[in-house]
Amino acid sequence: MKLNTEKLLMIPGPTMVPNEVLNTMALPIIGHRTADYGALLEDTVDKMKKVFQTKYDAHLITGSGTAAMDMAISNTVDKGDKVLNIVNGNFGDRFYKIANTYKANTMLLDNEWGDMADVEKVKETLEENPDTKVVTIVHNETSTGVKNPIEEIGKVVKDHDAIYIVDTVSSLGGDYVDVDKFNIDICVTGSQKCIAAPPGMAAISVNDKAWEVINKTETKSFYLDIKAYQKKWESSKETPYTPSVSMTYAMNKALEIVLDEGLETRFKRHDKFAEATRAGLEAMGIELFAKERARSVTVTSALYPEGISDKDFRGTLNNDYDVLVAGGQAHLKGKIFRVGHMGSVKEHHILGTLALIEAGLKKLGYDAGCGVDVAKDYLL
Amino acid sequence: MKLNTEKLLMIPGPTMVPNEVLNTMALPIIGHRTADYGALLEDTVDKMKKVFQTKYDAHLITGSGTAAMDMAISNTVDKGDKVLNIVNGNFGDRFYKIANTYKANTMLLDNEWGDMADVEKVKETLEENPDTKVVTIVHNETSTGVKNPIEEIGKVVKDHDAIYIVDTVSSLGGDYVDVDKFNIDICVTGSQKCIAAPPGMAAISVNDKAWEVINKTETKSFYLDIKAYQKKWESSKETPYTPSVSMTYAMNKALEIVLDEGLETRFKRHDKFAEATRAGLEAMGIELFAKERARSVTVTSALYPEGISDKDFRGTLNNDYDVLVAGGQAHLKGKIFRVGHMGSVKEHHILGTLALIEAGLKKLGYDAGCGVDVAKDYLL
Repeated sequence: MKLNTEKLLMIPGPTMVPNEVLNTMALPIIGHRTADYGALLEDTVDKMKKVFQTKYDAHLITGSGTAAMDMAISNTVDKGDKVLNIVNGNFGDRFYKIANTYKANTMLLDNEWGDMADVEKVKETLEENPDTKVVTIVHNETSTGVKNPIEEIGKVVKDHDAIYIVDTVSSLGGDYVDVDKFNIDICVTGSQKCIAAPPGMAAISVNDKAWEVINKTETKSFYLDIKAYQKKWESSKETPYTPSVSMTYAMNKALEIVLDEGLETRFKRHDKFAEATRAGLEAMGIELFAKERARSVTVTSALYPEGISDKDFRGTLNNDYDVLVAGGQAHLKGKIFRVGHMGSVKEHHILGTLALIEAGLKKLGYDAGCGVDVAKDYLL
Repeated sequence: MKLNTEKLLMIPGPTMVPNEVLNTMALPIIGHRTADYGALLEDTVDKMKKVFQTKYDAHLITGSGTAAMDMAISNTVDKGDKVLNIVNGNFGDRFYKIANTYKANTMLLDNEWGDMADVEKVKETLEENPDTKVVTIVHNETSTGVKNPIEEIGKVVKDHDAIYIVDTVSSLGGDYVDVDKFNIDICVTGSQKCIAAPPGMAAISVNDKAWEVINKTETKSFYLDIKAYQKKWESSKETPYTPSVSMTYAMNKALEIVLDEGLETRFKRHDKFAEATRAGLEAMGIELFAKERARSVTVTSALYPEGISDKDFRGTLNNDYDVLVAGGQAHLKGKIFRVGHMGSVKEHHILGTLALIEAGLKKLGYDAGCGVDVAKDYLL
């Protein structure tokens, strides 16, 4: 069937994939039980660990980021176990739902959507609940454009028995994450955000504190049983089930690009792009949704000006200009729009998009002025 | 890193992928929450249903074939439920292991590895156990090169309350399968065998009898909860979690190729290739492993001639000639080798491989004569 693959993806994932990476996807398939694949997988896991910044274990999973979230929870949480789910958006809520699927004794620490999680409250809750087994949080809430203080919360959790599970699906490789330094026991991420590979593969890091819990937890999933992954890895550097060979090619190349750019440089680039986007939108008179202290560097959320409909605005950008931005999720539907600026995004994508946001708003009767002019000063 | 993607894949999966399909893998990514992706998914599912030959529901899963096997079991089997696992190879055994993971009351109907499952025994067991909830079988056991009589067993199961789960991972699109006619309630398959797409996507069909059971079964997995897939599909023709967009491109094209060739023509081609391979090997004086009445049309298993080591034989084919054939699994390791001839395989692949099997054996001291000469008569 006919496909239109000419849209600019300024959504918070999947993001645009460099040609070098896309080209690996078209390579012929190799057998996954061969020394060639073993060497590829080992090299890819090694690169993945460098991006996680961990000296512990990591696995690649053929599946969505949600598969890795599920793997993290189903391998650490038994029925009745006390789980603290820190929630301030749709993906934090997903951890809560997963923990409930496994009948955990969940404690929902609900924070305002649009603000960051409250470190003090986490501390209090853990002190009141010393039998907490698992704490979950999402580093970068794409649903709200919020970044959570995972390093600070990691300092709190490390003094307790609980293990600390962090979703960095839309931050790792773009925003500053240091798994070992941040005391993250299990970190999950996806291929299709800041790493800028196609969607279809997820990754998980596991340290010794987490293995202790995993080894005492009942096996509740077959496909996502992390012990099977570890066992196969230790015996033959293979995956227990047939992996996506093409996605392994792509991840290897995408991670190479991340490491070649350098993590520090990449974090700074994401900071700069986020600042430019925010400044551009604010100069258009648009109010940012996320509180200033809590703003994501990979996605910017903004409130619609009075009278602008989500359908018309995003429809105009998509249909007239071939640019995709995202709408709001859950109760934020229709109220906010979200601009992704992560992964392999470049200055011209940011400025082109801001200029078209202005053009789109003008068409719909809102005079946004020239925010792009302000934004470009941040990019020089 | 440097990759050698020049090997001929005569293993029972992953199989060689047509260029037309590989090329779709390199297409830029589209947003998975867009009308464009919705149309692509709908068209792909529609094609998948034609290959399943079902009028009921089907879903695509980002994951291995094992993910679909797990989805089939975890959504139908609760703790203590009676499950009949018909086993005559490694993959039949995998269903048994999955059912045990969910603490089913499993009944293992063990058949000789190398022979087909016994229909009468299935009938007897179901009559003795009318409270059986689920029956599992693998159509084509790649581990042994055996094909099971799934149509005949389907006729038996349909008169019972039990639902019939069939793994057609290495047969669908190559060997004759008609899901509705065979009374299969849940059928699972993978992308990387007879459909000849890269590995990384699985598919599942579900009929009304199966939904009745699913709706009464406890949700035991988050990522593989089929009710979430169905709900999202019914509301918006989307997947609940980010799918592999690239694999959706590839599956769409690969299924189009299958349907363009025509299922009947494709089945006949696989029959012919299997006959040629078997005749060629037998003409070399090599004994086939699977019993005559039970031979797969997608993979041929053969016993090593006395004195030929698996390591040397497959090493020679791989290192000297760039041809991959498979070894044995579990207790058959070192005793058999397996030649895959499914998917997009062509006459020259079959004949080239047979000739190199002869050459390889000769190098190792076994004079195999000229079986390829016999094989080619089957291909005219």
